Amino acid sequence: MKRLLIIGIGAGDPDHLTFQGAKAIAAADVFFILDKGEVKQDLVRLRHELIEAHGRPPYRIVEARDPERDRTAPAYAAAVEDWRARRAELYGRMIDEELAEGQTGAFLVWGDPGVYDSTLAILERLPFPYEVVPGISSVSVLTARHRTSLTQVGRPVHITTGRRLSEEGASADDMVVMLDSRCAFEGMDGFHIYWGAYLGTPDEILVEGPVSEVAGRIRELREQARERKGWIMDTYLLRRLP
Amino acid sequence: MKRLLIIGIGAGDPDHLTFQGAKAIAAADVFFILDKGEVKQDLVRLRHELIEAHGRPPYRIVEARDPERDRTAPAYAAAVEDWRARRAELYGRMIDEELAEGQTGAFLVWGDPGVYDSTLAILERLPFPYEVVPGISSVSVLTARHRTSLTQVGRPVHITTGRRLSEEGASADDMVVMLDSRCAFEGMDGFHIYWGAYLGTPDEILVEGPVSEVAGRIRELREQARERKGWIMDTYLLRRLP
Ligand SMILES: C[S@@+](CC[C@H](N)C(=O)[O-])C[C@H]1O[C@@H](n2cnc3c(N)ncnc32)[C@H](O)[C@@H]1O
Ligand SMILES: C[S@@+](CC[C@H](N)C(=O)[O-])C[C@H]1O[C@@H](n2cnc3c(N)ncnc32)[C@H](O)[C@@H]1O
Repeated sequence: MKRLLIIGIGAGDPDHLTFQGAKAIAAADVFFILDKGEVKQDLVRLRHELIEAHGRPPYRIVEARDPERDRTAPAYAAAVEDWRARRAELYGRMIDEELAEGQTGAFLVWGDPGVYDSTLAILERLPFPYEVVPGISSVSVLTARHRTSLTQVGRPVHITTGRRLSEEGASADDMVVMLDSRCAFEGMDGFHIYWGAYLGTPDEILVEGPVSEVAGRIRELREQARERKGWIMDTYLLRRLP
Repeated sequence: MKRLLIIGIGAGDPDHLTFQGAKAIAAADVFFILDKGEVKQDLVRLRHELIEAHGRPPYRIVEARDPERDRTAPAYAAAVEDWRARRAELYGRMIDEELAEGQTGAFLVWGDPGVYDSTLAILERLPFPYEVVPGISSVSVLTARHRTSLTQVGRPVHITTGRRLSEEGASADDMVVMLDSRCAFEGMDGFHIYWGAYLGTPDEILVEGPVSEVAGRIRELREQARERKGWIMDTYLLRRLP
């Protein structure tokens, strides 16, 4: 029997890790780290830091290069599906070759494993039992840092993507937007925005205000930050103005 | 200066606490614990356990009885608003009387402080600076325990209440429902349900399946559990069947 753990590690701050996450790291024999290319080195670094702090030797780290996703394909879901199939093949091979019978392998997942992450969907295709350890999502960090609530009394909140927001416009009075590479908040003039980039890290940037007043500044900060660091990770809450 | 910390403690398992949460508990001089009545003793117990494990003496615990909310009022938002005003008064008085200048007071909030919790909205009304520590929400625990993802590729998810679901019906292909005292999932026949009660605790119950097949069993389990323990805390994800 080979066993797998999918461990949510929080969204940037090593102290986002839970005690349950630390114990799961201590229980692993092999850590699988998938590198998404140089721009994401910071994300890989946090994983190494957590393994060093909480791993129980002897353990091994197996690193591999994640397959590239075709970002030019117009059919987003189909491109993701194809990418997942290739990843499942890679993950299956790594587990076959690098994890011995009776051992526990671990995947450290950014944020919460249930929020816009494909590790779960990939491991579902493989014949190994796995457990999931919940993690602090960037959604929780965003609202905590802005000291605001995700939800209003008895009201729903929608969590969606930048692509959806651009295509469909506002679908609720409260919306969290992730995976937005296009500043889809621009033009959402009836809303207040709580925006955060690199949340939980020393590079964290926070901006809030009516979209009509702060959208330009956010676009500028985004561009400067992306130039400086080579990549950006940002998310925001839109709340309809009264 | 008096400083306040609003600390998310996770949704039932003491190991849901983050290292950031543990450090915040260690930094507090006074813990304010609001008791919601006898049925919620288990929820108060977890707070005491975490304070004992992570608090740095000398610290003090101030307990008070939370004002009752009028649950018969037809205007839900107005009743909650009135309840919040009375709670703000109580919290303000406790902080005035029990927290000295220069000290740090802490509120330990169930789950994530941003998700259907009123502590933030109450402290906003008071003249003290506060910080928020994100916590593992029951939403994350639900999906982790069912080893499923909250979101599907590029698709939105709605987080809503039982009351809303009853009144408005399905608003999306993926919905998380909280605060449901009426089994609002009944009749949602086109959906798969991932249901969990007392998540993260020794009493945890999980059921999943097409609503049309498992709704009756969930209602039964809910009633039995509520009778046995005196209260129930459950939440679920509805995912439209393909
Ligand atoms: C592939 S998704 C993974 C989300 C992750 N599982 C979570 O729970 O936060 C990546 C998106 O999450 C958001 N994100 C993750 N970490 C972030 C951070 N530290 N600051 C701001 N946004 C973040 C951004 O919207 C980014 O495009
Ligand atoms: C007042 S809200 C607080 C939510 C909390 N802040 C969170 O992040 O989970 C209470 C609702 O949360 C859900 N809930 C909280 N803890 C839970 C648990 N351990 N198991 C199942 N549902 C839970 C239930 O839907 C309950 O009605």
